Amino acid sequence: MQEFTALANRLADEAGKIAQQFYRQPFHVSIKDDDTPVTIADRAIEERMLEILAAERPDDGIYGEEYGAKDGKSGFTWVLDPIDGTKSFVIGRPTFGTLIALCKDGVPILGVIDQPILRERWVGDGQRTAFNGASVGCAPCSDLKTARIGSTTPAMFGDNPVYKKFNEDRFFWGGDCYQYGLMSMGFVDVILEANMQPYDYLALVPVIEGAGGCISDFKGQALTLESAESTVVACGDPSLFEDVKALL
Amino acid sequence: MQEFTALANRLADEAGKIAQQFYRQPFHVSIKDDDTPVTIADRAIEERMLEILAAERPDDGIYGEEYGAKDGKSGFTWVLDPIDGTKSFVIGRPTFGTLIALCKDGVPILGVIDQPILRERWVGDGQRTAFNGASVGCAPCSDLKTARIGSTTPAMFGDNPVYKKFNEDRFFWGGDCYQYGLMSMGFVDVILEANMQPYDYLALVPVIEGAGGCISDFKGQALTLESAESTVVACGDPSLFEDVKALL
Repeated sequence: MQEFTALANRLADEAGKIAQQFYRQPFHVSIKDDDTPVTIADRAIEERMLEILAAERPDDGIYGEEYGAKDGKSGFTWVLDPIDGTKSFVIGRPTFGTLIALCKDGVPILGVIDQPILRERWVGDGQRTAFNGASVGCAPCSDLKTARIGSTTPAMFGDNPVYKKFNEDRFFWGGDCYQYGLMSMGFVDVILEANMQPYDYLALVPVIEGAGGCISDFKGQALTLESAESTVVACGDPSLFEDVKALL
Repeated sequence: MQEFTALANRLADEAGKIAQQFYRQPFHVSIKDDDTPVTIADRAIEERMLEILAAERPDDGIYGEEYGAKDGKSGFTWVLDPIDGTKSFVIGRPTFGTLIALCKDGVPILGVIDQPILRERWVGDGQRTAFNGASVGCAPCSDLKTARIGSTTPAMFGDNPVYKKFNEDRFFWGGDCYQYGLMSMGFVDVILEANMQPYDYLALVPVIEGAGGCISDFKGQALTLESAESTVVACGDPSLFEDVKALL
């Protein structure tokens, strides 16, 4: 496991170097079919990570945001989102991140959230979640009325704006993957997101669980490489989960 | 004017030292009548700024978020928001800022947006807007369809959710005062906000105007200490303003 963690850290280091080069530089933003902005940096980062994995873990599977899936033979799959929060990257806000997950038989066992501009990195690998190498933990929160609730955008909920069932005054928006790191340090209590892909959430699972929180889809089902649901709910204090689920 | 700018920079330096001490520390969050979280840091920062202004500019008026208004005799008024984006501060996200404006007969002539954790500061003082001392400028954007549109939260629009008239896919949320800094550097094209107070917007005016953008209330009226409106619209490219206004 230590070798996997070291490799994931190296992938994040290399990704960060590229992100730093393109951050706040004028660049062309192309539009994919789903209307998500994709930057040159996004592609360059994934290519670099694929290159490293091809050399070091040729038998592992890959599931990347940009270049799709490659089956493996080892039972391990690397799940990559080179720039999660592309919108924040495009506007020059350092809350985007590189997400790296390692799944064993589809279950995430290692997750990295890396913010390369602020040089902030969260790693969950079955041990206590670490923020820049130091152990961190979620905060207790027994009352949904006082919870700090995060999400990226109301638009992600589409036709099912469940966030309206919560006290909107408790929400902060624009959270990106960064908010899951903040949850692992005790600063965010509940996160609700929708329209998410496996590369958006698999890296978050070991980070949140290793900090004492819980994370699942809205039905309470575990998030795996085979998840059919695109919803994510995380609670820093797992005792809040039933109250949250009751509103979803 | 140079002396005013130097003093505003000193106020921001002192504010930043206090904000840094309290950032990401566990602290008690009190709730004001209007349900905005207020931190110990918020009050300590405003007290420190008032102390400096009392010593150096005893005849100037003051309009602060925490301690209210003090009339002056000089025609100058300092408008202070010690921590704009308290919610971001509370969750440990470095997009909050200290806002300092100087008004002459109610008109903002100097504005500072300071982000003390990232050590990023925007200053508008009638010259070209500066980011950490270097001149910056807004970006051209002739088409609202491709504009990057920022706002802090849908909740701020209350019963008048004008943002829904725009393409919600173009929005990023959670902008705080930081997004006005990003606009002055060319990364954000349109900002729409509501439920704003003079201490929330007066510092933004010289920053945006000094970078070539325009900023007003939704009716196109100038933002001054006497503004009756609580809405703010900013365009990095002033030629976009009429198209934006038509939707408000």
